[in-house]
Amino acid sequence: MWKDIFIKRGCLKLNLTKVYENLRNEISLKLSEKRFHHSLNVEIEAIELSKLYGSDEEKTKVAAIAHDLAKAFSDDELIKMAQKYSIKIDEIQYNFPQLLHGSVAAHICSDRFGISDLDILNAITYHTTGRKNMSLLDKIIYLADVIETGRYFPGVEEIRKIALKDIDNALILACNSTLIYLTKENYLIHPLTIEFRNSLLLKGGNIYEK
Amino acid sequence: MWKDIFIKRGCLKLNLTKVYENLRNEISLKLSEKRFHHSLNVEIEAIELSKLYGSDEEKTKVAAIAHDLAKAFSDDELIKMAQKYSIKIDEIQYNFPQLLHGSVAAHICSDRFGISDLDILNAITYHTTGRKNMSLLDKIIYLADVIETGRYFPGVEEIRKIALKDIDNALILACNSTLIYLTKENYLIHPLTIEFRNSLLLKGGNIYEK
Repeated sequence: MWKDIFIKRGCLKLNLTKVYENLRNEISLKLSEKRFHHSLNVEIEAIELSKLYGSDEEKTKVAAIAHDLAKAFSDDELIKMAQKYSIKIDEIQYNFPQLLHGSVAAHICSDRFGISDLDILNAITYHTTGRKNMSLLDKIIYLADVIETGRYFPGVEEIRKIALKDIDNALILACNSTLIYLTKENYLIHPLTIEFRNSLLLKGGNIYEK
Repeated sequence: MWKDIFIKRGCLKLNLTKVYENLRNEISLKLSEKRFHHSLNVEIEAIELSKLYGSDEEKTKVAAIAHDLAKAFSDDELIKMAQKYSIKIDEIQYNFPQLLHGSVAAHICSDRFGISDLDILNAITYHTTGRKNMSLLDKIIYLADVIETGRYFPGVEEIRKIALKDIDNALILACNSTLIYLTKENYLIHPLTIEFRNSLLLKGGNIYEK
């Protein structure tokens, strides 16, 4: 999908510092104070992880500040935006449209802020569900979103500690925590989240030993 | 797959009472005493559910007694049997071969005991993972396996109570319990289990209210 969009528009090399400023300004206007603050915290956490694991810091800043750009939209608005951007809506997303806020944010980043970097767009798209075989930037944004300093839930301290040493194990714990919450609350679970967790466990290679 | 097998062999109308006796004899010889006892308990529970919800009692008995027919096989044996029966092995099953014991049991039932009833074969195949839009017999065998009188785990009493009134809600709770266990233990989760749970939640229609 992104390839068609970029070909249509022509790819430009953007000044990511300027893009970051525009995005930060936009979310300060469009998101609640609480969510704006969360976005800044995610950026701080993502930069720390970036320094530890070696992702591109400028891309990390942009993906982090933009990840919740579409979070203030209602369910109906998300469905309409997804239709506008020709995003394929699956049965789970149709019934739980908040799952679309990542994809919609990525399309707004491409459409209105000129971002054509696939690493950034994917990290924003998959920051809630995860996906199979995530890139380093995907992992950093997903994890930063879960463990930023404003988050409080049972086990978060352990995940923060492990995040300093082993990003994949921290991600498994973060994903487990989300899964247990979704399960207990009788929420739908997106198949991508299971593919994400399974791919991390399989990479770890210790399945037979369990 | 089953269609090809049945065409090749020719479908016979079997005496299910005789098939049941043969299966019961086989599992009394091949399974441990504990697992044989479990199979008998599953049969008792499945018959109770059958009377409540109206599945064919003879088919229910056969599916219940046969569901763990392949449970004594080792991981390597399950892989070999699956290959022998041309069962497609996915990445999750390959890494956690015990997930194949349902499919392998169904194929043994077809191959060695002459069962060609798809309702029975599917209920045996999917009794561990579940699947999207389960049949009544699928549901009864899955649930009976979880709540038979020998099972003890937190919440089982509540599931047993709800099973008397609302099989779908009991299944959601049973599936939740399995998911939480698999998650906490860092086991792989089969995508079919998520499709199973999502399809039950979507059927309930109360997703938006959560």
